[in-house]
Amino acid sequence: MASNLVWKLCRPPVFRQLASLRSGAEIRHFSSSDPPPENISRYPVPYRKDLPHDIVDLMEEVESKGGFLPNVFKVLSHRPAEFRAFFSYYNELMNKETGGLTKADRELIVVATSVHNKCLYCVVSHSALHRIYSKKPTLSDQVIVNYENAELSARERAMLDFAMAVCRCDTITEQHFQSLEDVGFDREDAWDISAITAFFAMSNRLAHLTDMRPNSEFYNLGRMPRDKNKDKGNVKGE
Amino acid sequence: MASNLVWKLCRPPVFRQLASLRSGAEIRHFSSSDPPPENISRYPVPYRKDLPHDIVDLMEEVESKGGFLPNVFKVLSHRPAEFRAFFSYYNELMNKETGGLTKADRELIVVATSVHNKCLYCVVSHSALHRIYSKKPTLSDQVIVNYENAELSARERAMLDFAMAVCRCDTITEQHFQSLEDVGFDREDAWDISAITAFFAMSNRLAHLTDMRPNSEFYNLGRMPRDKNKDKGNVKGE
Amino acid sequence: MASNLVWKLCRPPVFRQLASLRSGAEIRHFSSSDPPPENISRYPVPYRKDLPHDIVDLMEEVESKGGFLPNVFKVLSHRPAEFRAFFSYYNELMNKETGGLTKADRELIVVATSVHNKCLYCVVSHSALHRIYSKKPTLSDQVIVNYENAELSARERAMLDFAMAVCRCDTITEQHFQSLEDVGFDREDAWDISAITAFFAMSNRLAHLTDMRPNSEFYNLGRMPRDKNKDKGNVKGE
Amino acid sequence: MASNLVWKLCRPPVFRQLASLRSGAEIRHFSSSDPPPENISRYPVPYRKDLPHDIVDLMEEVESKGGFLPNVFKVLSHRPAEFRAFFSYYNELMNKETGGLTKADRELIVVATSVHNKCLYCVVSHSALHRIYSKKPTLSDQVIVNYENAELSARERAMLDFAMAVCRCDTITEQHFQSLEDVGFDREDAWDISAITAFFAMSNRLAHLTDMRPNSEFYNLGRMPRDKNKDKGNVKGE
Amino acid sequence: MASNLVWKLCRPPVFRQLASLRSGAEIRHFSSSDPPPENISRYPVPYRKDLPHDIVDLMEEVESKGGFLPNVFKVLSHRPAEFRAFFSYYNELMNKETGGLTKADRELIVVATSVHNKCLYCVVSHSALHRIYSKKPTLSDQVIVNYENAELSARERAMLDFAMAVCRCDTITEQHFQSLEDVGFDREDAWDISAITAFFAMSNRLAHLTDMRPNSEFYNLGRMPRDKNKDKGNVKGE
Amino acid sequence: MASNLVWKLCRPPVFRQLASLRSGAEIRHFSSSDPPPENISRYPVPYRKDLPHDIVDLMEEVESKGGFLPNVFKVLSHRPAEFRAFFSYYNELMNKETGGLTKADRELIVVATSVHNKCLYCVVSHSALHRIYSKKPTLSDQVIVNYENAELSARERAMLDFAMAVCRCDTITEQHFQSLEDVGFDREDAWDISAITAFFAMSNRLAHLTDMRPNSEFYNLGRMPRDKNKDKGNVKGE
Repeated sequence: MASNLVWKLCRPPVFRQLASLRSGAEIRHFSSSDPPPENISRYPVPYRKDLPHDIVDLMEEVESKGGFLPNVFKVLSHRPAEFRAFFSYYNELMNKETGGLTKADRELIVVATSVHNKCLYCVVSHSALHRIYSKKPTLSDQVIVNYENAELSARERAMLDFAMAVCRCDTITEQHFQSLEDVGFDREDAWDISAITAFFAMSNRLAHLTDMRPNSEFYNLGRMPRDKNKDKGNVKGE
Repeated sequence: MASNLVWKLCRPPVFRQLASLRSGAEIRHFSSSDPPPENISRYPVPYRKDLPHDIVDLMEEVESKGGFLPNVFKVLSHRPAEFRAFFSYYNELMNKETGGLTKADRELIVVATSVHNKCLYCVVSHSALHRIYSKKPTLSDQVIVNYENAELSARERAMLDFAMAVCRCDTITEQHFQSLEDVGFDREDAWDISAITAFFAMSNRLAHLTDMRPNSEFYNLGRMPRDKNKDKGNVKGE
Repeated sequence: MASNLVWKLCRPPVFRQLASLRSGAEIRHFSSSDPPPENISRYPVPYRKDLPHDIVDLMEEVESKGGFLPNVFKVLSHRPAEFRAFFSYYNELMNKETGGLTKADRELIVVATSVHNKCLYCVVSHSALHRIYSKKPTLSDQVIVNYENAELSARERAMLDFAMAVCRCDTITEQHFQSLEDVGFDREDAWDISAITAFFAMSNRLAHLTDMRPNSEFYNLGRMPRDKNKDKGNVKGE
Repeated sequence: MASNLVWKLCRPPVFRQLASLRSGAEIRHFSSSDPPPENISRYPVPYRKDLPHDIVDLMEEVESKGGFLPNVFKVLSHRPAEFRAFFSYYNELMNKETGGLTKADRELIVVATSVHNKCLYCVVSHSALHRIYSKKPTLSDQVIVNYENAELSARERAMLDFAMAVCRCDTITEQHFQSLEDVGFDREDAWDISAITAFFAMSNRLAHLTDMRPNSEFYNLGRMPRDKNKDKGNVKGE
Repeated sequence: MASNLVWKLCRPPVFRQLASLRSGAEIRHFSSSDPPPENISRYPVPYRKDLPHDIVDLMEEVESKGGFLPNVFKVLSHRPAEFRAFFSYYNELMNKETGGLTKADRELIVVATSVHNKCLYCVVSHSALHRIYSKKPTLSDQVIVNYENAELSARERAMLDFAMAVCRCDTITEQHFQSLEDVGFDREDAWDISAITAFFAMSNRLAHLTDMRPNSEFYNLGRMPRDKNKDKGNVKGE
Repeated sequence: MASNLVWKLCRPPVFRQLASLRSGAEIRHFSSSDPPPENISRYPVPYRKDLPHDIVDLMEEVESKGGFLPNVFKVLSHRPAEFRAFFSYYNELMNKETGGLTKADRELIVVATSVHNKCLYCVVSHSALHRIYSKKPTLSDQVIVNYENAELSARERAMLDFAMAVCRCDTITEQHFQSLEDVGFDREDAWDISAITAFFAMSNRLAHLTDMRPNSEFYNLGRMPRDKNKDKGNVKGE
């Protein structure tokens, strides 16, 4: 089936990202012990048995690799066709290896702009991802309060200044691009920064609509250094 | 090839929408007479010969049916993978026949929220689509200036109030849903209103990034009543 | 009578401006077919027979030369003495031939600042006048959405930047004047830009009070190139 | 000459208002001791000998009755034709005896809205006029800081709420009118409140343009109760 | 008792400041003729007999030296322990003789920032103190309307720009300090400007909570030059 | 010495609060391993040997009980007299046992209002205190992003709505008090909410001035449930 093929195409990078969340040997299955769906969304969350196979396949793969299924997958499955479009797009933007932006950079853009939009789900989940990718356990907390005095490099600061201009729908000028170029970003990086900001402008609003709640796992992910001796805490993060 | 299949899936509704733009007997091909690509985007616009076949196929079908190719197709083809995700998503949201929203309603949401975001491309192109679908040649001009005193029905007003709350990232409450229900919209309609608003929150920002320029055809589309007797070119623009 | 003399003084330029609206051979008289007065204002619109002669004289001259009577004349005639002051002032500011501002420039200032004030009447009517004077049928549409990325000359951009500073009641400094001088405007031009902006700050608020509706003719005025061969009614609207 | 006749028409009420400023037996002539014109405006202030007779006549009458000539007369005489339109309009709005608004009410509207617009000249001069008309020497000082907790009657509060809505260019609705009607204002009063607010929206911006400075006399006018017995005790407080 | 000792410590400078309010030979006792306490605060104002001795001692000394007791002493005595902390802090910030800030400077900072916060009590009382200390009877009135075009020195303007940045919670940068240094302020002056601004950010909010009303004496204090011949006007200010 | 007596008075509650931060058996002394003072403030941080004894005594007691010395003590010791006033006030507001506000409530007010003011130090340190007092490890993270959709009780929501009105300097009305009373708060509670909000309006601005950095300990305090059996499992999550 065609839609299955779409997923074939886009699944691997999604897996790769989520897999980075998984750190322990045992895979916990959250589907049974999860809070009832009505607690994570204002809209009904479908039972997996009622979802198309390609979506269930994706959910299971994400869950098995990451240790839990982020609620955005559950909440958006209320509209399967939009679910597919959303995660295809997400995948294109957040899991790229090319270009001048690291994965940590991408997450930092999401955190800074989602704070501006007061999006609980995106701030909590992507600050967790930033902690994991950056191995800086407090920087996202600083950016959440005020990116202007967070401990950022000049490069990170210019990146967020540009992202915030896009986030606010400022009219973008050559001067904006010049500020990026001054710290080493080219125009393709500018597109990446903007496209991520733009995608989460959408995502933040869907989270507001659905009152999407973050999984409790996200709050502490990546905060604590791992215990080197015994590797048994499966929420330990990095 | 898989990506081709995606397009098989999503193309028809896109075609249907664009086809509605076509009103004359002769199909004009704008590709040769278009202004040079550098005038419609801050980023390079690829030659069609350099684009993947599925994207060229889509462009040609849109162009042949609508009479011209909206610049958003040209500008976003700079990133083919994102192009596919963008139009798949667009298609899911804007070309639905089900639910409580007409196509004119959907365009009106785009106009009102894109004005808030000062997005030239989306306001000019979607106000044209609204004129065509609604057969109301001046309502979108009113909404562009101030939707609060435009000649809207109570239903349209409530719809735009909700869309604007989502557009501004207000925290959505039960009261917002109640205001929609008071005029006959259900929660699935609320999702549609929000998803369209959210998608164009993204789209507006991509247009700002690229300084995307509207095709000149859009400015006058749908403004003039058609001459029933001789169908000669009243949508041709100037 | 004294008040008659006032009008003798100020009428000709008003006529000149309105005359520019007229393009066809036949003069249509809208007074009889106009929508009932209650549709164009929240306040009663007087019958002409009840208005002072000088005001009726002015209205008839405007109507006969322009092809229709702009609703602002009807709506403000609710207060004849204020009507006279309003149009005397208007006349001084908008119909000047001297100075560094063309008539198109003056209309563009009105459009840009009236959009900021969300004034339906002034945006719709003065964007029509701008299209006519400038012979640029789409520039005002661009300015309505976002003057910052409209296709303006550096001179026009500086003019609108100054107008917007006045419109927002920014504290005006020498730097503001310098920016004008950099593109060739002198201090008398600065006064003109400001006085127009200030007058429409007033006018916009009167339109909000009265819920003044634009004549339907304004929406399409100046959009279409005239058919040189047969001058049959291309400014007539729909 | 025609323009002279205009002034015949409008002069008396202006005189009446200014005359109320005069409190002592001796008429002081400030014209000679005034600070040099360049200190009261960013634009040249004409010598009286160079001004049209009707304008000089008005200035002298105002000065002889009020004791000094408010700087707005000097500053705006830079443009005689606009001067005439400005004061004709002013006269229509501020010196009316009819309707539900007292002169003190009218001045209070000017004070509250001019504060919003940060207009030094209008706040300082019209708070003086309010003190004189209302015989309340501190109310305008309260309104200047925050009309929301000033010692206003419910009627005054509703009046200023309406004026501020017009001042901010809010879209005026029936609910706004209803709030006025609840405290006894009719629709003609609403027009008066709005027209005054609108006129000073213009006036404030002209004052910003010219950096118009208030006469020093205004700061203390109306602050001290007059000593009925001996007209020398203007320092005694209350 | 310990708390008494605190007051021993902090009282003298408080006295010095308040003493500057006193200008006549006779000390007027306002406590009996004051408007009933409920008119100056939303909260109960304690009878002096019910207040701790150290607070009464302070009140009486302030009153005897300044001629009247500012209402902030009465209103905040509702919470004696907070009263002590408040006036100890106030004393440290406002009565310093060292550093680059005069007492008039300190009051000007309070006026400018309290206007931003729409605080009636602080604006009215501290503009009076500014008039007294600066001997400029109209400058604070200008700052109340718009400090950006008040007749300030470059030094005062830079001081207020810095204060307003702190007032708005802007992220303070080296550039802010540099602007102060350009006019001769060092970093300790910057601390003083900020601490005063910060303290009144608190004070303004307490005044809003309690709806604290200014003493009527404040409105005219310092407005009139003293009559050199006979020193009998006890509201004459300085 | 008198100032010593002040501290005798206020010290115990400060100790009590800080003591609650201490969770392990060993008291860690951070004073030696702390980052150099220049990293925690834009202003010089005095050596303890140069500070007055009463301030050093307080610091040592706080440090020994809480396990580390919060940077606000170090940063504000740059001005010993202001330090004393600040902590006396702080003590009065935050360590009260009476009234309708728990200590967790007080911290929540600080978090919500300090986020509005973008104050890094106060948000990070007081969200830690909130986690400890409330034993709710994620609620403050939610409030930091958007208190409007955090998992608050109706009582907590009304408390924060009131605090935010004070924080923004809204004009407080009886309706604000009524909303508090609807959930069981009386007027003394309203004072407490406001005084805390007001104090942190000051504190936030001092933190901006000094660029005060939070101790690294604060970021994770209270996030992990303590392992009752073995006090080593601080990585387990919840």
